[in-house]
Amino acid sequence: MIFASDNWSGAAPEIAAALANHTPGFRAAYGTSDLDASVEKQFCDFFEADVSVFMVATGTAANSLALAASCKPGAIAFCHSEAHMVEDECGAPEFLSSGGRLIRVSGELGKINRDSLLMEIAGYPSSFNHRGRSAMVSVTQITEVGASYSCEEISTIASIAHENDMQVHMDGARFANALANLGVSPAKMTWKSGVDLLSFGGTKNGCWCAETLIVFNKDLASELPFLRKRSGHLFSKNRFVSAQFEAYLSDNLWLELANHSNSMGQRLRDGVCDAGKARLAWETHANMTFIIAKRSVADSMMEQGARFYEIRTPRSFDGVLDDDEKIYRLVASFATTADDVDEFLELIQ
Amino acid sequence: MIFASDNWSGAAPEIAAALANHTPGFRAAYGTSDLDASVEKQFCDFFEADVSVFMVATGTAANSLALAASCKPGAIAFCHSEAHMVEDECGAPEFLSSGGRLIRVSGELGKINRDSLLMEIAGYPSSFNHRGRSAMVSVTQITEVGASYSCEEISTIASIAHENDMQVHMDGARFANALANLGVSPAKMTWKSGVDLLSFGGTKNGCWCAETLIVFNKDLASELPFLRKRSGHLFSKNRFVSAQFEAYLSDNLWLELANHSNSMGQRLRDGVCDAGKARLAWETHANMTFIIAKRSVADSMMEQGARFYEIRTPRSFDGVLDDDEKIYRLVASFATTADDVDEFLELIQ
Amino acid sequence: MIFASDNWSGAAPEIAAALANHTPGFRAAYGTSDLDASVEKQFCDFFEADVSVFMVATGTAANSLALAASCKPGAIAFCHSEAHMVEDECGAPEFLSSGGRLIRVSGELGKINRDSLLMEIAGYPSSFNHRGRSAMVSVTQITEVGASYSCEEISTIASIAHENDMQVHMDGARFANALANLGVSPAKMTWKSGVDLLSFGGTKNGCWCAETLIVFNKDLASELPFLRKRSGHLFSKNRFVSAQFEAYLSDNLWLELANHSNSMGQRLRDGVCDAGKARLAWETHANMTFIIAKRSVADSMMEQGARFYEIRTPRSFDGVLDDDEKIYRLVASFATTADDVDEFLELIQ
Amino acid sequence: MIFASDNWSGAAPEIAAALANHTPGFRAAYGTSDLDASVEKQFCDFFEADVSVFMVATGTAANSLALAASCKPGAIAFCHSEAHMVEDECGAPEFLSSGGRLIRVSGELGKINRDSLLMEIAGYPSSFNHRGRSAMVSVTQITEVGASYSCEEISTIASIAHENDMQVHMDGARFANALANLGVSPAKMTWKSGVDLLSFGGTKNGCWCAETLIVFNKDLASELPFLRKRSGHLFSKNRFVSAQFEAYLSDNLWLELANHSNSMGQRLRDGVCDAGKARLAWETHANMTFIIAKRSVADSMMEQGARFYEIRTPRSFDGVLDDDEKIYRLVASFATTADDVDEFLELIQ
Repeated sequence: MIFASDNWSGAAPEIAAALANHTPGFRAAYGTSDLDASVEKQFCDFFEADVSVFMVATGTAANSLALAASCKPGAIAFCHSEAHMVEDECGAPEFLSSGGRLIRVSGELGKINRDSLLMEIAGYPSSFNHRGRSAMVSVTQITEVGASYSCEEISTIASIAHENDMQVHMDGARFANALANLGVSPAKMTWKSGVDLLSFGGTKNGCWCAETLIVFNKDLASELPFLRKRSGHLFSKNRFVSAQFEAYLSDNLWLELANHSNSMGQRLRDGVCDAGKARLAWETHANMTFIIAKRSVADSMMEQGARFYEIRTPRSFDGVLDDDEKIYRLVASFATTADDVDEFLELIQ
Repeated sequence: MIFASDNWSGAAPEIAAALANHTPGFRAAYGTSDLDASVEKQFCDFFEADVSVFMVATGTAANSLALAASCKPGAIAFCHSEAHMVEDECGAPEFLSSGGRLIRVSGELGKINRDSLLMEIAGYPSSFNHRGRSAMVSVTQITEVGASYSCEEISTIASIAHENDMQVHMDGARFANALANLGVSPAKMTWKSGVDLLSFGGTKNGCWCAETLIVFNKDLASELPFLRKRSGHLFSKNRFVSAQFEAYLSDNLWLELANHSNSMGQRLRDGVCDAGKARLAWETHANMTFIIAKRSVADSMMEQGARFYEIRTPRSFDGVLDDDEKIYRLVASFATTADDVDEFLELIQ
Repeated sequence: MIFASDNWSGAAPEIAAALANHTPGFRAAYGTSDLDASVEKQFCDFFEADVSVFMVATGTAANSLALAASCKPGAIAFCHSEAHMVEDECGAPEFLSSGGRLIRVSGELGKINRDSLLMEIAGYPSSFNHRGRSAMVSVTQITEVGASYSCEEISTIASIAHENDMQVHMDGARFANALANLGVSPAKMTWKSGVDLLSFGGTKNGCWCAETLIVFNKDLASELPFLRKRSGHLFSKNRFVSAQFEAYLSDNLWLELANHSNSMGQRLRDGVCDAGKARLAWETHANMTFIIAKRSVADSMMEQGARFYEIRTPRSFDGVLDDDEKIYRLVASFATTADDVDEFLELIQ
Repeated sequence: MIFASDNWSGAAPEIAAALANHTPGFRAAYGTSDLDASVEKQFCDFFEADVSVFMVATGTAANSLALAASCKPGAIAFCHSEAHMVEDECGAPEFLSSGGRLIRVSGELGKINRDSLLMEIAGYPSSFNHRGRSAMVSVTQITEVGASYSCEEISTIASIAHENDMQVHMDGARFANALANLGVSPAKMTWKSGVDLLSFGGTKNGCWCAETLIVFNKDLASELPFLRKRSGHLFSKNRFVSAQFEAYLSDNLWLELANHSNSMGQRLRDGVCDAGKARLAWETHANMTFIIAKRSVADSMMEQGARFYEIRTPRSFDGVLDDDEKIYRLVASFATTADDVDEFLELIQ
C-alpha cells in the first residue's frame, strides 16, 4: 500500500531487461554512441518532429536548464504557485539559470489561469529592465494536484507566451500519465500546442533514471550542450539512459505503464467515493488522488502499513475542512496493483 | 580493441545483477531508503571511518561540489595542469562553486610537485583578498597520465594544504585502480594521508553510473545536501545508484575489477616494450598506457578496428618526438580481454 | 515640480563640499585609508555598536550581498510582495546569492504581516531540504508605499526570524527618512530591534553615490570582503564614498536633509487633502505620497512640467478606483522646495 | 613620494569642478538623463564610432561583464599570465560570467605572445565541448608591467581571435596612458585594430570613480543592460559618473593628465638610470616604472616616506637578481609632481 510517490516504485521489467541487454560491450561515451543516436531518432519519431534531446540526471536539472537555455540574464519565468520548480527545487532554477526569477501565477487545480497570467505578465513590461524580462512560461502536465491541461488550455497559455516573446516550457514529470489521460499524440500535446521545451520524465513511470530535456524550438538548443556540461549533467555512460528510453519508447511501453497507473488511480477514486472515512478533495484524472480525512484516520492507516503524504492545502482549494481534517495525496504508479488499492480502500471503509 | 576510455565499457555482470535484483518493490525516494542507509554503512566500513556520502550524476559534479563544499567566495583551488577539473569540465568547477578559480600546478607524471605547489600558494597570501583565497588542493589519483601518487606523496601535499588552511580533495575517477596498484587500504590512501573529500568513481570500473562524493571532514559536509539539490544532482530513485555500490563494495568486487584492468594495462605495456612500431611514452602502473607512434601507424591501426585517442603532449614530457610521431593513450578496463590486448599488440609488431 | 524619485535629486551642498575637500592628496586605495577608517568609526558611533561597514555601488548590491552574506546554498528570503528586492532588482538577489529565492509575504502598507510571515515560514520546515531553507527576512524601512514600521513591529518580525534561525535584513534605502519620522535612534531602529544587516542608503537623501552594507552581527561579516570583491563592488578610490559619509554623518546632516524631505512630503499631503482633482490613496508619514487622480488630470499636470510616476495598484489596496483613475507616486527629496510643492498643488486644485 | 598606485591619487581639479557643477538640480535616474545621453555622444565622437556605453562601479566589473557579454556558457577567455583579471579580481570574471574560465598566456612585458596564444587556442577545439569554448581574448593596455602593445600587435592578436570566433577585449585601466604613449587615436588603438569591447578606465587618471564598458561590436551590447543591473552595477545617480566623463573627455583633459603622469614616469626612469642604489628592471614607456633594489634600500626609502610595492618576479623576467634584491613597482599619476620624483631619486642616489 505504497502511495507516497510514483518515484518510490522500482523499474519496469522491460526497462530492467533493456539495461541488462546493453550491459556488455563497448560504446562511445558522453552520448555519442550509436545507441544514443538511435534513441534520439526514436524521440523524433515519437514527437513527429526534429527534436533535440538532452538527457540529464533529474527533472530538476531538466526544468532548470530549460530556463537557462535562452541565456537571458534577468529572466523571469512564470509558473503555477504550486509548481515543482518553485516549491521543491531548492533554488536550482535560479542557480542554474544564473539568477532567473520565478513568478507564481494562480489558477485552479494547479493550472495557470489565463487572466492571472496576463495580469502578472503586465507587471514586466519590456521597456523596464529593472524588473527583469519575461522569458518563459512553464506549465506542469500533470499538475502538482493531479489535473491535466487540455491541449486547448496549453495553446491558450502558449499563445500568450509567444505574443510576449517568451518560450513555453512543459514540466512533464508525469508526461505519459497526461497523454494516457487525454488520449492525444505527444506531438499534439507539445509543439502543436506551442510548447518549445519539455522536461520529459521517464523515472516516475517505470524507468529508474531517465529524464531528458526535449527541445522543439531549435533556437533554444544551441547553448544546451554547454549548459548541461557546465552543471555536471552529461553522463559518461549516457548509453544506459538511452537504453532505458529505447525500451520505454518501444511498443508503447510508456503508454501501457501510464494507463496502468492511471487506472489504479481511478480505482482509488472510485473506491474513495464510497468510503466512510474519507472523501475526494477534488476531481483528478490520472494517477494522483487527493483525499480529505481526519488525521486520526490517516495515522491509523499508516500504522497498518499504508504510506502516503499529507499536503499543504492549496491556495485555490475552496472546499471546507473540519478542524481535524487534512488533505492527503495518494499516488499510484506502474507498480501499483489492484490488490494494493483494494487493501487500502478496505482501511477507509 | 577498444582502448579509447574505460568509460566506453559497459557494466560488470555483478553490477547488472544488483540492479536487476533491486528492480522490483517500493523504496523511499531521494536517498532515504533502507538500501541507501545500508550502502552508506558499507562506505563507512570500507573507509574505516564515519564518512558522509553524497551520490551525484557525474565525476564532474563530484569534483565541482567538492570545491563548493567549503562555501568560500573567492576560493582558489590548486590542481595539476593536466587535471580533469581544469582541462575537461567546461567551467563546471567555476560555475558550481560560484566563481572559484583553478590554479595549475606543474609536476611530472600528472602529479603536483611539492615545490611548485609551495610557489603557487605563496602567490595567494591570506592578507590580500584581491587574489581570492587558498581553499583547496586537488590531487588526481590515478593521474591523467597514468601515474599513482604514493601515500607519502599525498601526505606531503596534504600537509602543505592543511598548513595553509586548505582542504584536500582527491579526484578518484580511477580510485580503485590506484588502490589495486598501491596495495594499500582505502583509509590509508585517503583520510590517513590527509584527504578531506574524495570523488569516488565507480563508473569507469564497471558500474554504469555510480559517482559519489565522500566527505571525511564533517565540517565540509554541512552544505552539501543543499549544494547537491541546488545543482539538480539528487536522484529521486537514488536506490539504483546505491544498488550498484552495494555490489561494487561487496566481496571486493571493486578490487577484482581494478586488478583485472590494471593487469590488462600491464600486458599492454609489456607488449609495447617489444613492439617495432611504437614505444612507451613514459612508465605507468595501472590501467592507462601511453605510447609514441607515428601517426601513420596509429591511423592504420584505427582502420583495423583499434580505438584510442591521441593526446596533447604534456608540458612535463621531456622525451623526444619525431616530426610525425604523436602520443596516444590506451586505457584498459574491467571489460578488456587478453585477446583484445594481444590483437592490438600484433598490429604494432 | 520633480516628484519622480528622490534619486532624481543631485547632491547636497555639504556632500559636494566634502568631496571637494578630499579631492587632492594621496590616500591608500580599496578602503584602507585613514579616511575610510575614520568613517567606519563614525558609523560605529552613529549606531552605538561595533559595526562592520561594506561600501558598495548601489542599494541593489547591498541588498543582494546581505542575502549572500550567510553563504547558505538554497537560501530562502522572505520579503514583502512589493519590496524593491523582489520587484525591481532584475534577479540581482538571486544571482549574487547564487540561487537564493525570494518569497513574497503580504501585508498592508508594504509591511510584512506577522501572520502571513508565520504562514509562509511554515512552508519551509528545516527537515525538508527540497524547498531550500529559511535564511533571511528583509524589511523595507520606509516601505515601498511610504509607511514606516514601528520599532515594535520590527522587533516582532525579528523575533520570528531569529526563532527560525534566520537573519534579519533592513533595506534602508530611505533609512534617514524613517528615523526622522519615528524620532528614534539609529541603534533603536536596527540592532536593538533585532536587525542583523542593514542596507544603509545615503544616495536618495543627498549623497550622489553612498550606499553601504552595515553588519551588526559579526558572524555575518566574515565572507563579505570576498563577496563584495567577487561582484566587482570594491571601489579603488573608496575614500570618495567615505568622504560623502563623513559629511553625511556629521552634524546630523542626514537628519536635517531627511526632516526637510519629510516635511515637503507632509506639505504635499496636507495640500492634497484639500485638492479638488486628487485625493490621498493612503496615509503615509515620510517623504512619499500616493494620490489617486484621473489619468487625464495626471497627463495635464505632466504637460505643465510635473514629473511623477503611475504605480501598479498594490495588492493590499482596499480602496475604490473609478475606471479612469490611477494611483500616482510623489516623492519629495532634500532638494524639493516649498515652491515646488505649492506649484504642484495649484495644478490639482 | 607616493608611487604605490595611480589609484592612490585623488581627483583632478577639472573633474572635481564638473562634479560640483552638476551637483544641483534634478535629472532622470539610472543613466537616462540628458547628461548621460550627451556623454554617450561624447564617447561616440571620441571613438569616431557608434559605441554603446555601460558605466559601472569598477574596472573589475567592466572586465568581468565584458566576458559575460557574449552569454556563452563554458566560455574560455585568454589573457596574459599577469593580467589583472586573472591575478587580482578574486574570481569576479568567473562569477559574473557564470563559470567562465581564464587561460593564462605567456609573453614578454605582460603582452600576449602570438605563438603562445595560438598554442593555447589549439587546446580548445570547437568540436570538443568538454573543454569549454574559446570566447574572448583580453589584452591589457598598458600591461601590468608597464608596456604598451603597438597597434600592430593588437591587430595581430585580434585577427587570431576573430579567426577563432572570439571577441577581443581590452582592459584599459590605463587606456589614456597608452594613447599618450603611442600617440595614436582612440579609434586606431581600439576598433580599428580589432577591439570589440573596452574597459575604459578614468579612475586611475584623475577621476574618482569613472569606469565604463565601451562596446564597439553591437552584437555584444544586447545583454549588457541586464548583466549590469543583475550584478548591481547600474548607478541610480549615474549622472555623476557621466559628469566626470564630461570633463574628462573635454578639451583633451584625459590626454593632458596622461601626458603628465607618463612624463613623471619618464623622469623617474631617467633618474633611476643614474642611480647608485637601484636599476631599471626592464624598459617601460608610460607611467609605471619597475626597479631592482636591495630590500634594505627599499625599506630605508619607505622609512623616509616613500610608498611603493614589491612585486612578484614576472615569469618572463630574464634578468638576474642578487639574493637580497627584489623588484619594486613605482607608479606615477596625474597628481605626481616633479618634486615628488626628485625627492625620491635623491633617496636612491
